Amino acid sequence: MSKRIEVRGRPVGGGKLPLVCTPLVGANRDALLAEAREVASKRPDVVEWRVDFFEPIGRTGEVIDAGRELKAIFGDVPLLFTRRSTKEGGRPIPIDEPRLLELYDAICASGCIDLIDYELSNEPADVQHVRAQAHRNGVGLVLSFHDFDETPSADALVEKFMAMQGAGADVAKVAVMPKSREDVLTLLSATHQADQSLHIPLISMSMGPLGVLSRICGWMFGSALTFAVGMGSSAPGQIPLDELRGAVDILRKAVGASAD
Amino acid sequence: MSKRIEVRGRPVGGGKLPLVCTPLVGANRDALLAEAREVASKRPDVVEWRVDFFEPIGRTGEVIDAGRELKAIFGDVPLLFTRRSTKEGGRPIPIDEPRLLELYDAICASGCIDLIDYELSNEPADVQHVRAQAHRNGVGLVLSFHDFDETPSADALVEKFMAMQGAGADVAKVAVMPKSREDVLTLLSATHQADQSLHIPLISMSMGPLGVLSRICGWMFGSALTFAVGMGSSAPGQIPLDELRGAVDILRKAVGASAD
Repeated sequence: MSKRIEVRGRPVGGGKLPLVCTPLVGANRDALLAEAREVASKRPDVVEWRVDFFEPIGRTGEVIDAGRELKAIFGDVPLLFTRRSTKEGGRPIPIDEPRLLELYDAICASGCIDLIDYELSNEPADVQHVRAQAHRNGVGLVLSFHDFDETPSADALVEKFMAMQGAGADVAKVAVMPKSREDVLTLLSATHQADQSLHIPLISMSMGPLGVLSRICGWMFGSALTFAVGMGSSAPGQIPLDELRGAVDILRKAVGASAD
Repeated sequence: MSKRIEVRGRPVGGGKLPLVCTPLVGANRDALLAEAREVASKRPDVVEWRVDFFEPIGRTGEVIDAGRELKAIFGDVPLLFTRRSTKEGGRPIPIDEPRLLELYDAICASGCIDLIDYELSNEPADVQHVRAQAHRNGVGLVLSFHDFDETPSADALVEKFMAMQGAGADVAKVAVMPKSREDVLTLLSATHQADQSLHIPLISMSMGPLGVLSRICGWMFGSALTFAVGMGSSAPGQIPLDELRGAVDILRKAVGASAD
């Protein structure tokens, strides 16, 4: 049932479900590359470079050089390039939105990234700009929505997923904060509903300690990818990659042939 | 939040959540005791003797003798005595309900069991009879409801839990079959609602491959106990005890202090 995330026309990780993505949160080149080598040894399926943690983000040449070095380290493992805004849980960065878009243009053209994240809450014209730049360079567009305060209703979450597809996303991502255990079920239910309606792959998670369950079982409800800690965490509730894989493997084996 | 299952006034397993219960399904004394020794080595928190699998069920003396031998093997690990009816997923047995109630009287009085399961769908007078016999002997009463065909609505499930409490259960158990992934969320949501309303501990699960998730995470929504396979399975979807514990441990660690 769940759609697979593709990079340049091929399903990532041979189509396995869920893909495990590990964030990189290094603050400078040396820290980033040391983290990358450590993370690479854990064999994630996708790597997310959280460039809002990268202090030289304002110097495009340094960003691209670091991206090339990451590409050399990770080889075939797709690299997802993400600036998370402060409004949606990211770090403050020293450049404004127009300059960020120039960085996005340059990194898409560089050939060192495979997927790029952009928040749905941005100006529609900017979303279309990033989409065009990404697609011109064979880069997949992940449109995303994060709510660090609460979990909107299932209907509201399904609308977010639909809006991302409508805006031309190749992958639609929703991450929300539960205030109760019921909120975790709401996120899973919304994911399941969206998965049945959309033709693009989804990523979803309920964050924080209460939401950990969703990181382990979201794939059963249609989330194609889950985040786990390689060296550093990029969001609340992420657990170590080996533990996540252990729990997913037990579930996958138990669910057996009905997993798909 | 979740209430703990108690035996003779003390929380089972020191109050840990969830308790893991392993069924015994041996067809005769030798098979049962061999199974019991194997299961005991895996240290379950509770053992359920599914006496509908036990072919000498019609000879009360043999049942009590086997119960005493089980008690000797398991020591402090509580023994739950269960005849599951064919209507609710059990095996046909060669005795009728009045003779089964005589067996229940005898086993409650024998001192070799700690908990006894009886289905809520039985005649109310029979439920009260079993309750009185159980309580007279310090045995806890688990009232139960099973649907092997489908998952009733969350409201209907909450009503079942409430009816069990109303009928004097010490523990209320609901096991239902999902037809979809959404049904698994319905069972978890109903469990969460019931846990917030009831003053007795609950057990719930969604069965079959789709429902496996509930066996691993039900405790997060208020289910105090989960079943896992020691040697033989007694219901669809049960997974091996060590795998269940592995997955629960990962979740418990990740959820951390917010688990309670």
